[in-house]
Amino acid sequence: MSTKKLWGGRFTTESAQWIDAFGASISFDQLMAHEDLEGSLAHVKMLKYTKILSESDADQIIAGLHELQQELEKDQLSFSVKNEDIHMNLESILTEKIGPVAGKLHTARSRNDQVATDLHLYLKHRLPEIIDTLTQLQKTIVAKAEENIYTIMPGYTHLQHAQPISYGHYLMAYYQMFKRDIERFTFNQQHTDLSPLGAAALAGTTFPIDRQFTAAELEFKDIYANSLDAVSDRDFVLEFLSNASILMMHLSRFCEEIILWCSYEFNYIELSDEYSTGSSIMPQKKNPDMAELIRGKSGRVFGHLLGLLTTLKGLPLAYNKDLQEDKEGLFDTIKTIVPSLKVFTGMLSSLKVNEEKMAHATEHDFSNATELADYLANKGIPFREAHAIVGKLVLKGTQNNFNLQDISLEEFKKISPLIEQDVYEDLKSKTAVARRHSAGSTGFDEVKKQIKSAKKELNF
Amino acid sequence: MSTKKLWGGRFTTESAQWIDAFGASISFDQLMAHEDLEGSLAHVKMLKYTKILSESDADQIIAGLHELQQELEKDQLSFSVKNEDIHMNLESILTEKIGPVAGKLHTARSRNDQVATDLHLYLKHRLPEIIDTLTQLQKTIVAKAEENIYTIMPGYTHLQHAQPISYGHYLMAYYQMFKRDIERFTFNQQHTDLSPLGAAALAGTTFPIDRQFTAAELEFKDIYANSLDAVSDRDFVLEFLSNASILMMHLSRFCEEIILWCSYEFNYIELSDEYSTGSSIMPQKKNPDMAELIRGKSGRVFGHLLGLLTTLKGLPLAYNKDLQEDKEGLFDTIKTIVPSLKVFTGMLSSLKVNEEKMAHATEHDFSNATELADYLANKGIPFREAHAIVGKLVLKGTQNNFNLQDISLEEFKKISPLIEQDVYEDLKSKTAVARRHSAGSTGFDEVKKQIKSAKKELNF
Amino acid sequence: MSTKKLWGGRFTTESAQWIDAFGASISFDQLMAHEDLEGSLAHVKMLKYTKILSESDADQIIAGLHELQQELEKDQLSFSVKNEDIHMNLESILTEKIGPVAGKLHTARSRNDQVATDLHLYLKHRLPEIIDTLTQLQKTIVAKAEENIYTIMPGYTHLQHAQPISYGHYLMAYYQMFKRDIERFTFNQQHTDLSPLGAAALAGTTFPIDRQFTAAELEFKDIYANSLDAVSDRDFVLEFLSNASILMMHLSRFCEEIILWCSYEFNYIELSDEYSTGSSIMPQKKNPDMAELIRGKSGRVFGHLLGLLTTLKGLPLAYNKDLQEDKEGLFDTIKTIVPSLKVFTGMLSSLKVNEEKMAHATEHDFSNATELADYLANKGIPFREAHAIVGKLVLKGTQNNFNLQDISLEEFKKISPLIEQDVYEDLKSKTAVARRHSAGSTGFDEVKKQIKSAKKELNF
Amino acid sequence: MSTKKLWGGRFTTESAQWIDAFGASISFDQLMAHEDLEGSLAHVKMLKYTKILSESDADQIIAGLHELQQELEKDQLSFSVKNEDIHMNLESILTEKIGPVAGKLHTARSRNDQVATDLHLYLKHRLPEIIDTLTQLQKTIVAKAEENIYTIMPGYTHLQHAQPISYGHYLMAYYQMFKRDIERFTFNQQHTDLSPLGAAALAGTTFPIDRQFTAAELEFKDIYANSLDAVSDRDFVLEFLSNASILMMHLSRFCEEIILWCSYEFNYIELSDEYSTGSSIMPQKKNPDMAELIRGKSGRVFGHLLGLLTTLKGLPLAYNKDLQEDKEGLFDTIKTIVPSLKVFTGMLSSLKVNEEKMAHATEHDFSNATELADYLANKGIPFREAHAIVGKLVLKGTQNNFNLQDISLEEFKKISPLIEQDVYEDLKSKTAVARRHSAGSTGFDEVKKQIKSAKKELNF
Repeated sequence: MSTKKLWGGRFTTESAQWIDAFGASISFDQLMAHEDLEGSLAHVKMLKYTKILSESDADQIIAGLHELQQELEKDQLSFSVKNEDIHMNLESILTEKIGPVAGKLHTARSRNDQVATDLHLYLKHRLPEIIDTLTQLQKTIVAKAEENIYTIMPGYTHLQHAQPISYGHYLMAYYQMFKRDIERFTFNQQHTDLSPLGAAALAGTTFPIDRQFTAAELEFKDIYANSLDAVSDRDFVLEFLSNASILMMHLSRFCEEIILWCSYEFNYIELSDEYSTGSSIMPQKKNPDMAELIRGKSGRVFGHLLGLLTTLKGLPLAYNKDLQEDKEGLFDTIKTIVPSLKVFTGMLSSLKVNEEKMAHATEHDFSNATELADYLANKGIPFREAHAIVGKLVLKGTQNNFNLQDISLEEFKKISPLIEQDVYEDLKSKTAVARRHSAGSTGFDEVKKQIKSAKKELNF
Repeated sequence: MSTKKLWGGRFTTESAQWIDAFGASISFDQLMAHEDLEGSLAHVKMLKYTKILSESDADQIIAGLHELQQELEKDQLSFSVKNEDIHMNLESILTEKIGPVAGKLHTARSRNDQVATDLHLYLKHRLPEIIDTLTQLQKTIVAKAEENIYTIMPGYTHLQHAQPISYGHYLMAYYQMFKRDIERFTFNQQHTDLSPLGAAALAGTTFPIDRQFTAAELEFKDIYANSLDAVSDRDFVLEFLSNASILMMHLSRFCEEIILWCSYEFNYIELSDEYSTGSSIMPQKKNPDMAELIRGKSGRVFGHLLGLLTTLKGLPLAYNKDLQEDKEGLFDTIKTIVPSLKVFTGMLSSLKVNEEKMAHATEHDFSNATELADYLANKGIPFREAHAIVGKLVLKGTQNNFNLQDISLEEFKKISPLIEQDVYEDLKSKTAVARRHSAGSTGFDEVKKQIKSAKKELNF
Repeated sequence: MSTKKLWGGRFTTESAQWIDAFGASISFDQLMAHEDLEGSLAHVKMLKYTKILSESDADQIIAGLHELQQELEKDQLSFSVKNEDIHMNLESILTEKIGPVAGKLHTARSRNDQVATDLHLYLKHRLPEIIDTLTQLQKTIVAKAEENIYTIMPGYTHLQHAQPISYGHYLMAYYQMFKRDIERFTFNQQHTDLSPLGAAALAGTTFPIDRQFTAAELEFKDIYANSLDAVSDRDFVLEFLSNASILMMHLSRFCEEIILWCSYEFNYIELSDEYSTGSSIMPQKKNPDMAELIRGKSGRVFGHLLGLLTTLKGLPLAYNKDLQEDKEGLFDTIKTIVPSLKVFTGMLSSLKVNEEKMAHATEHDFSNATELADYLANKGIPFREAHAIVGKLVLKGTQNNFNLQDISLEEFKKISPLIEQDVYEDLKSKTAVARRHSAGSTGFDEVKKQIKSAKKELNF
Repeated sequence: MSTKKLWGGRFTTESAQWIDAFGASISFDQLMAHEDLEGSLAHVKMLKYTKILSESDADQIIAGLHELQQELEKDQLSFSVKNEDIHMNLESILTEKIGPVAGKLHTARSRNDQVATDLHLYLKHRLPEIIDTLTQLQKTIVAKAEENIYTIMPGYTHLQHAQPISYGHYLMAYYQMFKRDIERFTFNQQHTDLSPLGAAALAGTTFPIDRQFTAAELEFKDIYANSLDAVSDRDFVLEFLSNASILMMHLSRFCEEIILWCSYEFNYIELSDEYSTGSSIMPQKKNPDMAELIRGKSGRVFGHLLGLLTTLKGLPLAYNKDLQEDKEGLFDTIKTIVPSLKVFTGMLSSLKVNEEKMAHATEHDFSNATELADYLANKGIPFREAHAIVGKLVLKGTQNNFNLQDISLEEFKKISPLIEQDVYEDLKSKTAVARRHSAGSTGFDEVKKQIKSAKKELNF
């Protein structure tokens, strides 16, 4: 058996329930119930203000919508597939409550501008939360960096020890990434914070509506300039999914390193128990599950981005039902990134750094080779030549199991008479870090500057 | 507040509930409850058979699992986030039911092989359903094609009329696509129908288990040959997502054409009311919503494929928590393609073909130009030359508003004295179709052969 | 046979040429030859300014680099795989030219910051071109819209006639999309216009370099604040690929409509011969190849975006060779979008609009149904009820082959006594458009306002 | 200036060269020159056999085509953008060579079936090469595994030491993955090895062609059953791109581990110099560039897959110019996977295993915890309880810096009186591996079985 639809006038046969279920969006778009009521309220207030509806009709509808808001708050509304989507569900409940006057709410409005309005509002409300969550992570990073300015670790390229760096400096690299993420989400507001309401089905309306009025009610910065564009644009969702993908990519890199560093072999950090899990068969395991899960979830978010791009590809204007596919990926992305950020923040703030292990690693490797090459270049040897000399020493060291600091001054002199006793100071990893004064470098003073500047940015 | 975990022995701090919720999979992996019980039953029967467990212990567990199966059937089981996943939830319920002996079920097994087994079983059970649904669609196509062997429509390339074809022939092109889809899902069974059970965490086990026994119990064709591979392989899921993506691509093409053909401009078909919807603001609309939705859903499935590829990229062996991300995309893909196919089948079988409109379109265009070129080539004019001659005629026709069949024999003779009266027969669209005898062509006889051969393939 | 590498000191075996070729990037990164020389010049000038190099050494290098610039301009440089990448190739040519002093150029620099600098410069130089190309397209749209303010066409939703609109209004919807594209590429400059130079391998350098000096030389707005971030960040490329994907999505939609409208069935526009192609077998064809190709190329660009996201996923800091994969997708994307935009602009500006065909379509359909519903709603009938009444009329009309304007006033009165003679004016499509006064609507006055405002934005 | 096209009869204006260049495919489809000539030869032989062409005409064309083949072999053919694609270029050269009779070659053929034939042939020729390259890699794996049956390494889950395994066993996991890859490429042949030739533009032809004849000439297994499907199907390319994506995913995982294992911290393997590279600034580096590059290239291949899926989404039948986008991604994928496999094979076969380091790692960790739990379970303690006991011991060990084998029997007895002296044997990692006898496990005997079976599969 099937059901009478609000738009069913033209239809002679009614569709079976399973077909309805396929087409219905209520299972997921009920997430926008709050925004739908908000939008309807703004719309009816405008209809009253412009006298399109009589004061009495409008007031009845407004009262009814307020009641719905309260019931929604209390989780007392129940939705059904037969009413397809959140818009029809709410209108149907409103009709039950206040009678046929509810039918006037939809005057000068279409589901096309209504759903677009809801979606804009929904994302508009979420963006500040997301930016705030990112800011919390940034603060955690800065705090951790400040504690670790003098913590020396191997800096990697190609996952090989390259040069010793400050762990605080390493952390501040991620501070920069998340700063860009915030800038992207902030830019995203520009195309989200626009009201499509009043575009109606696609062409605008003959009713003397006031789009600026509804936009002001809903605290939108501006209105869409073109009604076709208003109902068919999903750029703001794509921007969001793209931003979220880049954010997840950053988190996946950070997580990869956490996973590596928790391993028996690296052993640079220890996660708190709260952010690890055990194994059903191997009691010794302390698995960095949360980091793995966040890393893994990058795929899901990339998928949502690609999914929506594909859905939109080649769609003629204006509204097409394909656009119904814009929501689930967006909702799931928000549901993914917010807890990922929170869990990550907790994990980072509670992890213990094994400073000795980190420092030790930089003292028994060849990550001071650049220092020697720079030392020679400073004495006037062309860089490429200095590089070749050091390369040969490293090779010998690897084969005969010694490090550069183990070479006697006598031996050094044989390589180049320009080498003096002060070379040994240069070969210490702490010195290597300390001596870096170039802007943005890992030198302790430079790291302090980065932290200071970040704190200013964060009012922290 | 937080909770005691089954694997919690090693841990001193307990994790907050919201972190648990982030890591938990019970909200979606409960879909595999049936398979998890099936797998556990096979496992415990094997433990009994190999005497790893005593008969009495095993029998208690078996009885408990049977009870759980019945309760699951009746929808009486309830799961909780504190037990993370379906495996722990079911084991925990079993423990409540039969006491500590339940703890012996997990002997010689790990969650790693358990979850892999569940996932293999889950997909193994779904593939025949999917193949069957595809077969139903094929039958619908063949039936529709049989009714429409002699229905003439414009064949398109570049969405321009190219040559007249049989609508039955057009439909049989999709028959071929879905045939390949079935072949792909059938091939997919080869890598799905393999038992990972007994691989334990990653290395196999010291217990004298019998993997062939459990495989036979679960009706798996074979077992994984390598235990590391068994727990970390998700190829069978990727194959499925890839197959589903290609299938959705086929459906998106078919839907695109349905949407075009329903338009006022084409007007070649009419959807039944059951498979159309109306508009809230425009009562005259009869929207091909279902076709649009299916077309739009291709994005979602492509996204799941890309998502899992990304998740797996760069993962070291063997199990990593990232793999938990393998399920939702798979489940959603199944939930997408099965109803898409069913709705599509219903939509296709109930649509009305506007034969006159289709045929009319082929009689007032230049889709018989190839016929004239072929006619000339048959008279010995090199094809490229014939092509050029006809091109000029078409240009003149377009400019002066006549079609090729409107040209008098006298005029034709001026172009080439080789043209005779019989040219007019060749210029009819029905003739154009009928005269095509090349294998697989649109000629009526060839279409009949295709249909006959399809019916044989379908036992239909 | 194999070859001596600049960094080969440490290595005992040399690699075979085919392995070299696999690792080499010179086949594509030579596109950045100009930027590499520019970056090297800025670097050596800074080395001179900071006295890290002697005036005489620096001047020799500067003179050598200028020579290389001239030879590059004249296309006289030839590169080889044995020198791997553009950086090594140019340094090697420089060495041939000026001898071992060339080896001092690389002082206080690494390939990691060098390649990042080149890539930033490359995109920084391209963005204004792209924005300019988009602006040309916008101007074409505005000019076309201005000519077509009063051209009436069916507005579509679900590819069904919904309401009559102005073709100028339709075009202005795309104006808005390209405006957002420009805003995105402009925002993209913020993260592109940053100098990584001086970050060295990852940690900065002990040499007293001046990063602000090189940034100023290269006209970068600012420098990267963190050296690790500087060498491992590719956000600016991802932003670009995401922006390009959204742009291609817009073009694919516009192209889809052009393809539809060129069809025999729609016949709303005719492409100029320059932007169409013929068929080898069907001389009558005038194929919208360019539109199809642009639509098809959306896939390629989406693929590049997803490709780079995947490549970056899970990469530990700082530089990894995986990052070499950042270039080809970027270069190909630029090579795709710039000509796509140019071809599209030419195609749009030269297409002929079949105004009569468009207008005719709106006068023999039910796209005036909303007008009647609004008419009734204006008389006080609740919108949902008015909608139902009109729905029934449309159904009858479809079944009995009449349109709404064909109904006699007498018949109308039977439906509602509120209907008067003036209904017929409302039912005309021109009236329907003209009467829309809501902001951003398709009403002629509103379209004029949009065009005026666009011209102001474009200084046009 | 622009140029006269072979299909230009209908056109009055000619297109500018830069537009031509945009539409032309000759820059990349010339890769199929060999296949295009092969296809033309088969076609003309059939035209002769069926007497559609006279013997003398056909023989002239055949002779001309043979000449072209020889010139192609000697790299003497040159192609131009003005002839758009490889088909037109070759026909144009043929015309220069043999005059207007060349125009008869295209009788009963269209570019649509021609390009489809070329693409099928091209991939058909490449698949055996790819399968062979994969087989070489498998042989290398088996040889390496055989040398390392008794090499003990830590088996990982979550990148944590889980249980000791045989390095040979680890390698054989990848053997299985590549085996599935081969099975997928073999299945791919089924849909590649089909002849579309004779489908003409889309509808077949009125000429009495013999499609089985051309298929036999070209050694195709079968012909396409439906002409529309023949020209619009690209499933075989999608299957290939999907298979290549899964293959690259496998390689990316293997490479990730190689990169990890080359690190200072793991130090389990050393790459040969041939497969490593140095650093311009850090002479000590021995970077696993090749492994990183292969890992990074997974993104590119995934991108091509998604790109083509997107391009095909929503395309109406039959040929559309969008399909031109099918080639570059395919060609680049082949150009990516073949050298990736070869480089990988060389890298794997030449790497040195640091057996001592690997074994040492398993003797100073808790990867024998499962052994103790199994030991207890074997004594009758329920698995979950045994697990909890061992968990507590591990916690104490971590905190107090001892391993399980360091616990005295006396202490063990306090935990459980069931523990005997034999526990110490069980705690050795070699014993742990050796005692695993379950099918497919890491036990030495099981690994030998896997190797034996692989050798049989490889005839090796």
